[in-house]
Amino acid sequence: MKPIKKLVLLGTGLISGSFALALKRARLVEQVVGVGRSPENLQRALELRVIDAASQDAASAVIDADFVFIGTPVGQMGALMQAIAPNLAPDCIVSDGGSTKQDVCALFRQHLAGHLAYCVPAHPIAGSELSGASAATYGLYEGRRVVLAPFAETDPAVVARVNALWQACGALVHEMPAAEHDGIFAAVSHVPHLLAYAYMNAVLDKPNAALCLEFAATGFRDFTRIAGSHPEMWRDIALANREAVLTDLQRCATRIAEVTALVEAADADALYRFFERASDARSVWGKPSSGY
Amino acid sequence: MKPIKKLVLLGTGLISGSFALALKRARLVEQVVGVGRSPENLQRALELRVIDAASQDAASAVIDADFVFIGTPVGQMGALMQAIAPNLAPDCIVSDGGSTKQDVCALFRQHLAGHLAYCVPAHPIAGSELSGASAATYGLYEGRRVVLAPFAETDPAVVARVNALWQACGALVHEMPAAEHDGIFAAVSHVPHLLAYAYMNAVLDKPNAALCLEFAATGFRDFTRIAGSHPEMWRDIALANREAVLTDLQRCATRIAEVTALVEAADADALYRFFERASDARSVWGKPSSGY
Repeated sequence: MKPIKKLVLLGTGLISGSFALALKRARLVEQVVGVGRSPENLQRALELRVIDAASQDAASAVIDADFVFIGTPVGQMGALMQAIAPNLAPDCIVSDGGSTKQDVCALFRQHLAGHLAYCVPAHPIAGSELSGASAATYGLYEGRRVVLAPFAETDPAVVARVNALWQACGALVHEMPAAEHDGIFAAVSHVPHLLAYAYMNAVLDKPNAALCLEFAATGFRDFTRIAGSHPEMWRDIALANREAVLTDLQRCATRIAEVTALVEAADADALYRFFERASDARSVWGKPSSGY
Repeated sequence: MKPIKKLVLLGTGLISGSFALALKRARLVEQVVGVGRSPENLQRALELRVIDAASQDAASAVIDADFVFIGTPVGQMGALMQAIAPNLAPDCIVSDGGSTKQDVCALFRQHLAGHLAYCVPAHPIAGSELSGASAATYGLYEGRRVVLAPFAETDPAVVARVNALWQACGALVHEMPAAEHDGIFAAVSHVPHLLAYAYMNAVLDKPNAALCLEFAATGFRDFTRIAGSHPEMWRDIALANREAVLTDLQRCATRIAEVTALVEAADADALYRFFERASDARSVWGKPSSGY
């Protein structure tokens, strides 16, 4: 495989930095330029050899690049796309690491409409409690999943190249439409966060909330762990993936109403079947033979 | 403190057996008689010296007992109370280890109406994946909480004695009305289980459920862990604590409807505050300085 000559990271952090390191280890990149707002973070990235050069100006940094990876929060992506659009080489690949895809695709369409043949929206599913360039590691993507959500307009050869680069980083690559991606993550990640936040608020509503929390044990601990997540980040994700989140919240509300009605009616048999279906599925989840 | 002369365990398992072992270690019991339906389990309890004598007949076993501890599932308690009532010494203390209290209190009132001065419904909050007499340990209650839910009719000296015995087992003892106990456990244990089961069923309802589960990660893993719990046990708990469970399910449904409306309205500020309240409370929970 042909190496990338000049990879530009817009946002130099855990996700983009680990992509750069993995490509360096695979000898699939010659030069990495890091762009970011924090001079200290860029300096650290240089020292750790995550990047070979640093810049605070996205528009000039992308000149001559053959791969641009946008690794910022989604809220910053539109302005960056707008800034780099005039300076992109005609065959420069542009990808990103945002955790929602329909909204990012809309930004690509808005700001890089003439360049879509080379655009491959992506979601590397990896993370850490840590962030910033100093948290980047060579092995972050080993065995982790990466979703590619290319446009109908994206050149199949470009998709294949991005796919091969991620595989070279050790990732398991899946291609699917942005809407399918967002529906999956609404169901298995975004909605559980909203439910955990809502549940925690409901406990706090109780007149004896402090006493309740004193008796809360391991079931509570695990069920509410994600209710401790960063409010700003999850506000942005909930709004970015609004439609899919609302669809799956509705699905949950229906099932919660059902279990409420079964308890109300004291329908022991139906309640048993309701619990058993969930328990059976949860018990096999994650086991190698389960097919999940 | 005066030791128990003859302690009878109705149901010889993890909870009752560990109570007996802790009392033996504290030299606060002279003889322990285990009653149970499984001869193998009783034999094992004798070998492990959890009990000193075994019986399969509750009614005759309680003759001359000064403390009877009912450690069976709640569903078996009524028949046992009825069987032992004629043979109880007038000052024999009767307690239990059921995880719901209003329904157990109702059984005490039904079957031991003339004996309530000596009855102390209790809930030792300890458990293990293991069960049976062979899982009993001396230290199960070290630092664990035990709730006592005595009747208005219970002799305060009897409550004080049961309290002191549990403290001698290493437990932190709380006294509260049965309704308050059930409200607390509905909120922090029973309702999370129902929500986790309902959520899991909602995911399974999706046409691409198998694909979704393939992408589910650590947030999903922890949020749904309790959805793998035993369907029969949780059906019984949900129905035993029906009123408190319905009250708190309603509380959660209200908060879920609220977060749904905020996402629908794309009300970023209110969504942030909603998440922040939950996140702040969850982040301090369990820390020594939190007051919880």
